[in-house]
Amino acid sequence: VTGPIWQKSDTTVDDRIMRFLAGEDVILDRQLFVYDIAASKAHVRGLARIDVLHADESEQILGELDALQDAFESGEFVLDERFEDCHSAIEFWLTETLGDIGKKVHTGRSRNDQILVATRLYLRDQLLDLVARCKDVASRALDRARAHRDEPMPGYTHMQRAVPSSLGMWFAGFAEAFIDDAMLAASTLDWISANPLGTAAGYGVNLPLDREGVTEELGFERTQLNPIYAQNSRGKFELQALDALGQALLDVRRLSWDLSLFTTHEFAFADLPERFMTGSSIMPNKRNPDVVELLRAAYAVVPGARSELESLLSLPSGYHRDLQGTKGPLLRAMRRGLDALALVGELVEQLEFDTERLREAINSEMYATDRAVELTSEGVPFREAYRRVARELDELGDRTADDSIDARTSPGACADLRLDELAQRLDSLG
Amino acid sequence: VTGPIWQKSDTTVDDRIMRFLAGEDVILDRQLFVYDIAASKAHVRGLARIDVLHADESEQILGELDALQDAFESGEFVLDERFEDCHSAIEFWLTETLGDIGKKVHTGRSRNDQILVATRLYLRDQLLDLVARCKDVASRALDRARAHRDEPMPGYTHMQRAVPSSLGMWFAGFAEAFIDDAMLAASTLDWISANPLGTAAGYGVNLPLDREGVTEELGFERTQLNPIYAQNSRGKFELQALDALGQALLDVRRLSWDLSLFTTHEFAFADLPERFMTGSSIMPNKRNPDVVELLRAAYAVVPGARSELESLLSLPSGYHRDLQGTKGPLLRAMRRGLDALALVGELVEQLEFDTERLREAINSEMYATDRAVELTSEGVPFREAYRRVARELDELGDRTADDSIDARTSPGACADLRLDELAQRLDSLG
Amino acid sequence: VTGPIWQKSDTTVDDRIMRFLAGEDVILDRQLFVYDIAASKAHVRGLARIDVLHADESEQILGELDALQDAFESGEFVLDERFEDCHSAIEFWLTETLGDIGKKVHTGRSRNDQILVATRLYLRDQLLDLVARCKDVASRALDRARAHRDEPMPGYTHMQRAVPSSLGMWFAGFAEAFIDDAMLAASTLDWISANPLGTAAGYGVNLPLDREGVTEELGFERTQLNPIYAQNSRGKFELQALDALGQALLDVRRLSWDLSLFTTHEFAFADLPERFMTGSSIMPNKRNPDVVELLRAAYAVVPGARSELESLLSLPSGYHRDLQGTKGPLLRAMRRGLDALALVGELVEQLEFDTERLREAINSEMYATDRAVELTSEGVPFREAYRRVARELDELGDRTADDSIDARTSPGACADLRLDELAQRLDSLG
Amino acid sequence: VTGPIWQKSDTTVDDRIMRFLAGEDVILDRQLFVYDIAASKAHVRGLARIDVLHADESEQILGELDALQDAFESGEFVLDERFEDCHSAIEFWLTETLGDIGKKVHTGRSRNDQILVATRLYLRDQLLDLVARCKDVASRALDRARAHRDEPMPGYTHMQRAVPSSLGMWFAGFAEAFIDDAMLAASTLDWISANPLGTAAGYGVNLPLDREGVTEELGFERTQLNPIYAQNSRGKFELQALDALGQALLDVRRLSWDLSLFTTHEFAFADLPERFMTGSSIMPNKRNPDVVELLRAAYAVVPGARSELESLLSLPSGYHRDLQGTKGPLLRAMRRGLDALALVGELVEQLEFDTERLREAINSEMYATDRAVELTSEGVPFREAYRRVARELDELGDRTADDSIDARTSPGACADLRLDELAQRLDSLG
Repeated sequence: VTGPIWQKSDTTVDDRIMRFLAGEDVILDRQLFVYDIAASKAHVRGLARIDVLHADESEQILGELDALQDAFESGEFVLDERFEDCHSAIEFWLTETLGDIGKKVHTGRSRNDQILVATRLYLRDQLLDLVARCKDVASRALDRARAHRDEPMPGYTHMQRAVPSSLGMWFAGFAEAFIDDAMLAASTLDWISANPLGTAAGYGVNLPLDREGVTEELGFERTQLNPIYAQNSRGKFELQALDALGQALLDVRRLSWDLSLFTTHEFAFADLPERFMTGSSIMPNKRNPDVVELLRAAYAVVPGARSELESLLSLPSGYHRDLQGTKGPLLRAMRRGLDALALVGELVEQLEFDTERLREAINSEMYATDRAVELTSEGVPFREAYRRVARELDELGDRTADDSIDARTSPGACADLRLDELAQRLDSLG
Repeated sequence: VTGPIWQKSDTTVDDRIMRFLAGEDVILDRQLFVYDIAASKAHVRGLARIDVLHADESEQILGELDALQDAFESGEFVLDERFEDCHSAIEFWLTETLGDIGKKVHTGRSRNDQILVATRLYLRDQLLDLVARCKDVASRALDRARAHRDEPMPGYTHMQRAVPSSLGMWFAGFAEAFIDDAMLAASTLDWISANPLGTAAGYGVNLPLDREGVTEELGFERTQLNPIYAQNSRGKFELQALDALGQALLDVRRLSWDLSLFTTHEFAFADLPERFMTGSSIMPNKRNPDVVELLRAAYAVVPGARSELESLLSLPSGYHRDLQGTKGPLLRAMRRGLDALALVGELVEQLEFDTERLREAINSEMYATDRAVELTSEGVPFREAYRRVARELDELGDRTADDSIDARTSPGACADLRLDELAQRLDSLG
Repeated sequence: VTGPIWQKSDTTVDDRIMRFLAGEDVILDRQLFVYDIAASKAHVRGLARIDVLHADESEQILGELDALQDAFESGEFVLDERFEDCHSAIEFWLTETLGDIGKKVHTGRSRNDQILVATRLYLRDQLLDLVARCKDVASRALDRARAHRDEPMPGYTHMQRAVPSSLGMWFAGFAEAFIDDAMLAASTLDWISANPLGTAAGYGVNLPLDREGVTEELGFERTQLNPIYAQNSRGKFELQALDALGQALLDVRRLSWDLSLFTTHEFAFADLPERFMTGSSIMPNKRNPDVVELLRAAYAVVPGARSELESLLSLPSGYHRDLQGTKGPLLRAMRRGLDALALVGELVEQLEFDTERLREAINSEMYATDRAVELTSEGVPFREAYRRVARELDELGDRTADDSIDARTSPGACADLRLDELAQRLDSLG
Repeated sequence: VTGPIWQKSDTTVDDRIMRFLAGEDVILDRQLFVYDIAASKAHVRGLARIDVLHADESEQILGELDALQDAFESGEFVLDERFEDCHSAIEFWLTETLGDIGKKVHTGRSRNDQILVATRLYLRDQLLDLVARCKDVASRALDRARAHRDEPMPGYTHMQRAVPSSLGMWFAGFAEAFIDDAMLAASTLDWISANPLGTAAGYGVNLPLDREGVTEELGFERTQLNPIYAQNSRGKFELQALDALGQALLDVRRLSWDLSLFTTHEFAFADLPERFMTGSSIMPNKRNPDVVELLRAAYAVVPGARSELESLLSLPSGYHRDLQGTKGPLLRAMRRGLDALALVGELVEQLEFDTERLREAINSEMYATDRAVELTSEGVPFREAYRRVARELDELGDRTADDSIDARTSPGACADLRLDELAQRLDSLG
């Protein structure tokens, strides 16, 4: 529709360069557009409060911003290569519909703080979603820990059979992991909840903007005060949000690795729900745990996005066009990561275990540690007990897995899983 | 159009899971489709040579593969979410148009070797492009080195003025860099030029496939023989191609950093062509070197893609669905990186320097090293000469930049740039 | 002194393999040894509380642990290759000095939870240090912002002169950055403050350990309950601590980049204290800002350590020897990063600016944005005002930098830096 | 012993800053010292050829450089914190022993090209070692492939049993992998074999240095001509050497993952030699495959070192002190990676397989693909054959693994492993 905002009459622009400048920016902006509109509304109300806009001007602009959002959501308005970015699209829409009044929306702001605030609002929503999904997984894992509290399964170290464990302890382990992940996502949300709108191009503006009002209207915890810092924080806050996502995906990867092992023919401990499986194009006999593999793979988007972002940030203060490159990796990683997390709760809930096979996989040598610890209560120093048991591994045959897990009374272990305490932590996340 | 190839009648598939499985796979496959078709043709001819297909069957299939390519290129056939991936699309087209004959194309191959060979062919083209673009930049930099051989400019270490240098040496430095980059891209191309087609799902097949014939037809340097290794090399070869790209982009970043400094008001050594500049949405006075900044940013896609790929590869032997995740980062990084490189030659050619200002920026202290070395020819040990000159920095005032660079006779330096030797190296790359 | 704890009589161990297994582990353990001793004391007191150790046994062990700490700190006891790791050294010392009683210390624990708790205590101290150093930098930057509140300096975007700014705003920007960094370090400290001791090899133990007591004695915020999760969290918590460090180092890098530019001959805005400079081995005339460059470089240890750690964590549940590799990158990055931060406060305090030169660097075109915003108050729509000012850039000559920054009244900008609000945030960090 | 070379009388140096500047530099330099000495000798001979040094001067210096090397290797001369770096140590030694003549060694060179050439010589040796170790692994894997050519083992995709495979094919897969790795290491060696000595601080020197002579004496393939490029290549060449190492370690990781699975109780396909195993500190029953796990972990040093290096390289042209940070990650990664590789050959050679168990693990459904392909020779289109076999999976019971692998005649597969061709490729590496 239009050339770039900054275009002056005497400039001709080479198409290839324009395409390189644009990259996939405007397509990515589709994910940020509603946040840009929301922030624009807050900006307009703020301008009205300091009398830079008349009441009727701000009303008209707010009305058209609502109309634009409706048109975008209905598909009537398409954000595409006609526009340089979502910011230009907003100004274009307002100018088309309102003429001179529309040209006033950009008073006291820059695309530099506009993209910052849109991204910040976007990150806030993603982190809220992350908290919710982690809590969902944790909650279902807790339910299953309760249901399987007393079912033995072998415990491994170095992928070698080590000591008896329980299905309850396995599920509770993931419950606690995702509770911690939710806690981290929540505190990351607090940290990034700082409003950059009103810092303009990175040096503020000669207007007494009502920034506190805008901060409150947009629901931020605090105002990011300093304009230079606001610019310098681009990428910083994105990295921290990616870390929070990454922590959850690290646990998804552990879970997926366990399931990938447990569903081999050799382990055969667990079955996936049918719809989590696919077939092969050449081997008629195959049923493959593809979803579990793609869940395991999901973490990769985080180091990918982090490395890409980090490589962009070695710069002096102030805005640089390099920062445009932060958008793609952030949006892609967030979407893929949260899509993965959205499947985990159901998987945890529907996973089936072959409890008979789990029990059979506990062989008698695995009671050695129990026995060594018992000897200490007879006064044998642990290191002595350890050596004695190592010599007598074949004398452990009459023990049972049930006895072993019943005796595992250290807090958090099989006989004392502390599920209520975990449930309380989960609830306290609000 | 169709469900997945492996779908059996008793399977229902949950939409959300299907979307997660698909990811953006089929959209990415648009960049691989022509390679998949080319490899399919070679596969079909190979099957005909061992009499698995009759001559007329292979002719019909080859005809339809050509037709599919035409339809794809004309936009008549769209590769989209109707298909699981590009491989399924080919089989679908052949079965639709040829019935039972079409169902024969997948004999003796798997999607596992199909994606390997398509990616390998794609990488080969990207690396050829990389070689060409590096050579182009080097060639233009050599031209400019010749043109500016005797123009002084200040040389910096630690971003501090150090010794006189020349514009010719600056351009020649980038020429040699991109020659080395082209050399590396060429040897990487040799290394990855190994044909994996004919290894099926990773264990070969009970047919005496004519793999050498296919290797030759597709123009590979060697056959990747072992099917287990063929699978295990997924990601490995991609990483190496990304490295070759990365080496060139590291030099683009250096060049861009120099230009970013040189175009500041404070340095003011260089001017960019007008069309490499843009404006600001809030500041009417700005002309910004956005293209240079995005060129500097371009390298970031390489560590981003590398990190994402690497995170996927911690796996036992054999195909795993995790590997699907290698596709996106590879294709995105290659495209962005090569698009960036495509602009560099022209930039190097059109860049303008303010030679007067370059000359003025050479102050007299910068002759200190020259003087210290001269003293050594009078028998003063270098470390003594160094100390003496440090005490007499104000006695260097009558020297000129021209004298300094004329005397810089060490091979490769200002007075002996060895441009012909660089030109020979460039030519020898073929 | 001894072979490994687990060594049985029938094993011979190949030296080369042993060296590979050991790596640099025991040398790195020197940084963890005091934490291992502190945790051992808490473990011993816990065993006494549940009557696994008699009062006099625990007293003797505690006494010898204190003696070991003294001997280590005085250099009398050297932790070196004689020991497999710091855990073995403790057990060796106790057994040498106390005989059978010493052999009891390992009752109910494993090296798996021992390394977890020692690392966690170490991380806590590092994060406390990180909080303190960020607060120190922020505090000094605030002082300087107050002192230079009204001194103009040019503001840059794209490294191009953009609008007038102030030295006060520049210092305040770093103050706010390091306040946020301190806030993040503090919340990361909360998050990792979870006691893993008492989870043994990853499956708990058949003793009713008093874990809450140990948690309290060691000053942790909560108990990490689940033994499987405790193992799975190895690396996870380390990554998060590295992120907190990284956020601070990102700001150190920005600051260093600014100073690297500001100390060029071309900008010449700032001078470094003499002792932050070094010379050259060949160029007698050079004074180089090496410290600033190494501060800029310091961030690199974080992505380095993160990538190395992340690459290790693609594993199923439970301990794996791979995890030993998390130690080196963590300890190296923490030490280098905190050493860098320790220099920044002083640098911020002692940095000298050439205020005259800063003022001269503000040319008249930089008032264009001020003028465009002013026009909006006369009712000219911003986009119109922007175009008009772009045409009349040469009419801005009678404005002054002082007027411009006095008029910059948007909260956080030059005329309203909100230093008191920042000081309050800093104080509220405790 | 001495303060820094560049120290002038009026400078006082703060200890803490000096420690930060030094980092661990001089300790790391121990690995580079012999290369610095070798390059110094070539530099001295070059200076003599252009008459900057008299014959007797150069003889004396060369004699003392040999003496220094002897003293260093015998431990008589210790490179430690007394020196700023290894370059200063050389100059110190020569000045101490030869007085004024010693002060002449630094004529026409800078520490900037000195560290470049020492690192380049070091990299060359590491890459030669890498080639040798990859060839050793490949050679032993080929031997074992020959020995186990006809022994069936199950082939997996998605970690699910897929089709019959053979032990010969598994070993041959790793042979081909390490042949490719050796090939890459060799071509990387060619690429980095460029002599930077004679480029001084990055701008050459006013002496007609005999650079070709030095290049030849040091055994480089070509001279790195341009001094600016020589500086800009710092880090670039190191990254490429790390990549070559990384490719080999990726294959070590695959191999280790396979062995980690194969040595579980559940798979129980393979046994490690006793000395590749260790025990547990708490569990008397454990024998753990620690070496295999640390081999799997070894790859992590490469992305760690790469990320750290890459983060340092976003800089304008010319030397910057940031580059000092490239040394540590490079040296650590090379050492750890090559130490790991040194164990792999022996592991491959001594690994024992339970061939009975491997055979039993092939169940009848795994013949489905064979059957489907056979049907195509009866004219059934493959996709039809696939569907038919999927319905009749229980009719495959009378097939044998031996028949299946004998029929796998596609080149590279079980019945046609092409070991001679692989051996030829290995031999052709020289």
